[in-house]
Amino acid sequence: MNDARKKAVVLLSGGLDSATVLAAARADGFDCYALCFAYGQRHAIEVEAARRVAERIGEVELRVIRIDLRTFGGSALTDDIDVPHNHDVESSKIPITYVPARNTIFLSYALAWAEVLGAADIFIGVNAVDYSGYPDCRPAFIDAFETMANLATRAGADGVKLTLHAPLIDLTKAQIIQLGVKLGVDYSVTHSCYDPDGQGRACGRCDACRLRAAGFSQAGQPDPTRYQRLEAT
Amino acid sequence: MNDARKKAVVLLSGGLDSATVLAAARADGFDCYALCFAYGQRHAIEVEAARRVAERIGEVELRVIRIDLRTFGGSALTDDIDVPHNHDVESSKIPITYVPARNTIFLSYALAWAEVLGAADIFIGVNAVDYSGYPDCRPAFIDAFETMANLATRAGADGVKLTLHAPLIDLTKAQIIQLGVKLGVDYSVTHSCYDPDGQGRACGRCDACRLRAAGFSQAGQPDPTRYQRLEAT
Repeated sequence: MNDARKKAVVLLSGGLDSATVLAAARADGFDCYALCFAYGQRHAIEVEAARRVAERIGEVELRVIRIDLRTFGGSALTDDIDVPHNHDVESSKIPITYVPARNTIFLSYALAWAEVLGAADIFIGVNAVDYSGYPDCRPAFIDAFETMANLATRAGADGVKLTLHAPLIDLTKAQIIQLGVKLGVDYSVTHSCYDPDGQGRACGRCDACRLRAAGFSQAGQPDPTRYQRLEAT
Repeated sequence: MNDARKKAVVLLSGGLDSATVLAAARADGFDCYALCFAYGQRHAIEVEAARRVAERIGEVELRVIRIDLRTFGGSALTDDIDVPHNHDVESSKIPITYVPARNTIFLSYALAWAEVLGAADIFIGVNAVDYSGYPDCRPAFIDAFETMANLATRAGADGVKLTLHAPLIDLTKAQIIQLGVKLGVDYSVTHSCYDPDGQGRACGRCDACRLRAAGFSQAGQPDPTRYQRLEAT
């Protein structure tokens, strides 16, 4: 690490959480390299949101990796299965929107880029509320990935400690929004909905929309989300 | 796991090691789902070798995943850097042919497919000789990936134990070849060389060629490899 400023790779989906994490990494003094994944047609709108977020925060190098998780199928986010609405977010069952090994794959690419850049820090925006049954959002998963990453890479072999940061992991959605507002995040350019319409407007009914709307409400902040239906706000 | 036969995902590069692992998994009674990666133009020949190996062993479902590790650069196997010849394979330095986080990325995709298939077993052909400085071929890496994988997935959350098999990890190249010959592997269709010519013939000088040739010699088996130069055999 000869650079004066430390480099960090930040997973950026264009959603509320990852936008907050990118702002937090910048505030911590890191030069940020944002990594966004295009997987399945349904989420093209997420890539556009990621570009807007990176531009709005500024001085961020964004790479978009196109991967085809539909090769394996198995999830409503990549297959042509209907996204369920009004799913019980308090349920401990893993929702159908879970994508097999998604965070593992995303973090593996982040690890590759970090090694090439000479970055010893990776940021991911998982949190306890988003967990709601997603195994790869648990603190134990983050710890295990970090351990594995330090054995996997040349950096680890050379004695450089790689750190996987999940700064939102213990925060509620409201606390994440309060943090982001403090850091100046413009949430109007972020996208969270699993089932947007052609104009990118949120459905207001899927898990992601409900958690997001409740977060703005509990944070006492105006919700800048564009919704398809007034009654869902 | 309602199936009578257990399913396994096997990483298949078309090389000597992974062909042996595929045959070993079949011999252990697994229904085999082979996963091959196309990364960078230089290795198109590996994908063809993987197809030939899968066909020769038979009853194997092969999926080829196209990924672009050149997005990040950083290795002679994916960049336009010359592959070094006569590199000291006894050296503890990590060779330039090392691809950042390669096995981590490959295993992450295998994990996704295993979860969709309901497979609790993944096979990878890393071994101690191939280690020669590659951090992601170490036993400690395999153990750490397995631990992480069991926390990452729905299967792990449901109490199904996922096992990452690296049956070659303690074998020399000669022992691997002896095992493969016993299992009926046809090594003439496998490919190992880092620097083949347009006809797919091996250079005989790179690390992979030297380890392979020495393995056949030490195993007392004829070397079926097609070489570019006679003096390299």
